[in-house]
Amino acid sequence: MDAHLPIGVFDSGMGGLTVLRVLRQRLPGEDLLYLGDTARLPYGTKSRGTVARYAAQAAAKLVERRIKLLVVACNTASAAALEDLRELWPDLPVIGVVEPGAKAACAASRNGSIAVIATESTIANQAYQRAIHKISPQARVSARACSLFVSLAEEGWLDGPIVEAVAERYLIPLLISPDKPDCLVLGCTHFPPLSATIAKVMGHGVKIVDSAESTALEVETALSAAGGHNARLGMGKAYFVTTDDAARFSRIGSIFLGEAMAEQDVELVNL
Amino acid sequence: MDAHLPIGVFDSGMGGLTVLRVLRQRLPGEDLLYLGDTARLPYGTKSRGTVARYAAQAAAKLVERRIKLLVVACNTASAAALEDLRELWPDLPVIGVVEPGAKAACAASRNGSIAVIATESTIANQAYQRAIHKISPQARVSARACSLFVSLAEEGWLDGPIVEAVAERYLIPLLISPDKPDCLVLGCTHFPPLSATIAKVMGHGVKIVDSAESTALEVETALSAAGGHNARLGMGKAYFVTTDDAARFSRIGSIFLGEAMAEQDVELVNL
Repeated sequence: MDAHLPIGVFDSGMGGLTVLRVLRQRLPGEDLLYLGDTARLPYGTKSRGTVARYAAQAAAKLVERRIKLLVVACNTASAAALEDLRELWPDLPVIGVVEPGAKAACAASRNGSIAVIATESTIANQAYQRAIHKISPQARVSARACSLFVSLAEEGWLDGPIVEAVAERYLIPLLISPDKPDCLVLGCTHFPPLSATIAKVMGHGVKIVDSAESTALEVETALSAAGGHNARLGMGKAYFVTTDDAARFSRIGSIFLGEAMAEQDVELVNL
Repeated sequence: MDAHLPIGVFDSGMGGLTVLRVLRQRLPGEDLLYLGDTARLPYGTKSRGTVARYAAQAAAKLVERRIKLLVVACNTASAAALEDLRELWPDLPVIGVVEPGAKAACAASRNGSIAVIATESTIANQAYQRAIHKISPQARVSARACSLFVSLAEEGWLDGPIVEAVAERYLIPLLISPDKPDCLVLGCTHFPPLSATIAKVMGHGVKIVDSAESTALEVETALSAAGGHNARLGMGKAYFVTTDDAARFSRIGSIFLGEAMAEQDVELVNL
């Protein structure tokens, strides 16, 4: 592994920036190359085959630019395409967000009842259910697709009565179960900007798990194992490429990155 | 024009089925070939260049299957790509939904103040504003992007307090203007399933204009002019093709078509 190369990160759009943000905090010396496939977002309402095809194209673009490790910062793509990507590039470490999210949930839950919210596609292919049961075969997993959360986050509507009402409509069915979960996994990288509202609706006693932290930890471990840490002292750089409209990417990306992003820092590519 | 050929209709997804529905009522003898580019939907948040490229690919697929007339049943694609499509296929009549919608609005408004709601992309490129001013240079046009309406319609959340609250947040700024509009154009084919809620928020005295009716009328006129009506007595057939997941297309498509659609009636194609 060439330690000087950047870590590649890709997502269907801007949601993966919530993962990039944590990577940057945890591994400040690393360069990061982020690709958001905004020309074809969202992935979450599309079929497994289509998502796998898009993911392979996005990953190929990052590999072409040379990266030392690939983070699939999109739950839908992690669920649909991780094995395919590992087969396509056997020498490249590929880390998704589903396994780290499942690990964090199993660690966080005390009563073994875990709720997962994600996109239609991630819920339908039961990616979290399988990943959680691999770690904790006894865990009880309830799941709910929350499609509107994606558009609410992109619209920048992060709190207030509308978002709360939408969150209640999606989440209350999870709460009224006799086997009430004590942990909720945000199984979509678009959801963290809504986490305060989600936590409010879930109430005390339910931990909110975001896979970004545990994904960053997994990246750190993989780099250490391969002697691939960039040993520079200063801060690494982040490069952003998108498949559509750089202005929209930087505007909405700022919501997920948690800081301002300038349009001129975003490069347009074609997949 | 070969009268026996079907009319081609395309949209980014299922919204164009609101246009197909009216075409079927008005021109029952015609065969209809519908393409929904669900692998890349929505178009409404994407740039003009990307939408124009997608529209040309979708139209090429319909032309390859032979059609006598093309309806671009997507406001975003009509706004971004109509001229391109007419240049690509100069012998094919191409009808969009923006001009008919603008015509209907100018006819409906008495006070000359017209409001338009549509996707981000349609609003940003001012397609309706230009189309309305071409017909009524004195008209005052106010416009608002209502991105969440697309996901609400796809989620099947068509009325109730959440939808009303979202509609109020988007629409009240249009209503409190001193030059209050007396007519609101649904400038996105995804919006008609929400029209009852939209009408409730806009209140009495504001006419809701849906471009489907006037588009169908324009199609009828174009067919008559070219002697292209299918003179059969029975009902024509509708064929559906989609670029992703037929099951989801038929499930959500039923919301827009206003009747049940079976998964086996939907064919998967690659663009």
